[in-house]
Amino acid sequence: MSIALSTTLTGTDFDTVVQRTRDALADQGFGVLTEIDMQATLKAKLGEDMERYLILGACNPPLAHRAVGIMRTIGLLLPCNVVVREDPDRDGAIVVDAMNPDVMVQATGEPALGDVARDAGERLRAAIAALGGTGDGLA
Amino acid sequence: MSIALSTTLTGTDFDTVVQRTRDALADQGFGVLTEIDMQATLKAKLGEDMERYLILGACNPPLAHRAVGIMRTIGLLLPCNVVVREDPDRDGAIVVDAMNPDVMVQATGEPALGDVARDAGERLRAAIAALGGTGDGLA
Repeated sequence: MSIALSTTLTGTDFDTVVQRTRDALADQGFGVLTEIDMQATLKAKLGEDMERYLILGACNPPLAHRAVGIMRTIGLLLPCNVVVREDPDRDGAIVVDAMNPDVMVQATGEPALGDVARDAGERLRAAIAALGGTGDGLA
Repeated sequence: MSIALSTTLTGTDFDTVVQRTRDALADQGFGVLTEIDMQATLKAKLGEDMERYLILGACNPPLAHRAVGIMRTIGLLLPCNVVVREDPDRDGAIVVDAMNPDVMVQATGEPALGDVARDAGERLRAAIAALGGTGDGLA
């Protein structure tokens, strides 16, 4: 199992991909509650350079409500992260990775989370697919 | 494997526990980059009631830097979440759960993340232990 549902976009720019990702998530009922600029954080804290790398914390409230109703500690794996990052190996390529919600079931060993993970996965796959591009997250 | 390193505190109040948790994380090199008030979010979005429930996103920059150096998609499981929540089954009890970083190794199947997860786990266990209380996260 891959932890990521991913697509790779070319011929666009980073900020456009971030906005399109937010819009695609919103269309699937996910609000972005948090945003971490990993590039800026590692530069500020360690002086280290890396490519542009944002972690968006996406929450679909009905799905989150169902998940905490099943297992109170599941907040440890919420919100569902979506990473937008430059591909360090390919100039101009931008990767969008959404967390595969099956991680919640696998990590917890709680089969009752399976339905929520499946619903979340369908929505995240639809959001990733709406971005176009090429990737292994669309299968 | 449990996904949570946990302790349960009594004889204190929620806001005090949140502040003590932030301090204990800081002592272990974790800054809190994000905070989600799950109780307020589910009330605002769905009209649903639940106990107080905060998700803190804790980041130790040197550990995060090592992790993304090993596996670029690991941002899907960062920052390391720490949940502070009222125990719905026990009046006055407050639970602090930190994500067990071994989840990163188990979910990805990437053994090279083992050293980072071990270092992160030691620090998170120390933070949880510094809070006192009783729990299964201290073993």
